[in-house]
Amino acid sequence: MDSERKPVELDPKVAMGLLIHAEFGRVAFVADGLPTIRPLNHAVFEGRILVHTGHASVFAEAVRAQPGLEVAYQVDEIKPHSRLGWSVLVAGTAVDVTGERGAEQLGKRVQSWINRPLDTVIAIKPRTVTGLRLTIGD
Amino acid sequence: MDSERKPVELDPKVAMGLLIHAEFGRVAFVADGLPTIRPLNHAVFEGRILVHTGHASVFAEAVRAQPGLEVAYQVDEIKPHSRLGWSVLVAGTAVDVTGERGAEQLGKRVQSWINRPLDTVIAIKPRTVTGLRLTIGD
Repeated sequence: MDSERKPVELDPKVAMGLLIHAEFGRVAFVADGLPTIRPLNHAVFEGRILVHTGHASVFAEAVRAQPGLEVAYQVDEIKPHSRLGWSVLVAGTAVDVTGERGAEQLGKRVQSWINRPLDTVIAIKPRTVTGLRLTIGD
Repeated sequence: MDSERKPVELDPKVAMGLLIHAEFGRVAFVADGLPTIRPLNHAVFEGRILVHTGHASVFAEAVRAQPGLEVAYQVDEIKPHSRLGWSVLVAGTAVDVTGERGAEQLGKRVQSWINRPLDTVIAIKPRTVTGLRLTIGD
């Protein structure tokens, strides 16, 4: 019998744990009526996903234009050959917290994906956190 | 002087070439009014990005409900420590091509991310293909 990759649904707490230990993900949101994706580094603090970005980035502009913008944030770690690993998906809302006390310090814990001026801290508040782990089964 | 990661915009043809040689990406789309992301394997054929998925998947359902659904497809290869690498972003529209001649054979060239019944082939027609490469500069 062939062994098959078997998807196992993750407990939301386990999924959140994987997210906390990861540093890099992708945010999806709607800008100018069209879905788009941006790769980002993140840190999780008090249940919120914090990303540090530039004032002029498409993501920062979309969040300023619509505070509480609906977003999806996805993180995965999948081995190219076996394609074993996991994927975690967060659905939630994003707000600009740049002016909030402590936001600047928190933002500095998040390294930028690219070296551009970082002056905006966005917090994503998860509504749901789901995940799958792929393991070998029969 | 510190060396810095420097983003270099990719020519669309180079970006498409990176996409062709990759096998794995993430599609973002709007389902039930909310943005979401799904990891997928893909193959590029005649300028279209083909993914093989299940009839009951959220992505297949969204495309059937709205042929020509607006999507973003993103592929990256970024080293965890140096964070050097590249990211390619496609904006385009998705249609179910399951019934089209040759679609089944083409679909079989795309391995599933997870082992679930695959009976639906979705084609993403790119409108724009953009990309960034991160290199070390001064």
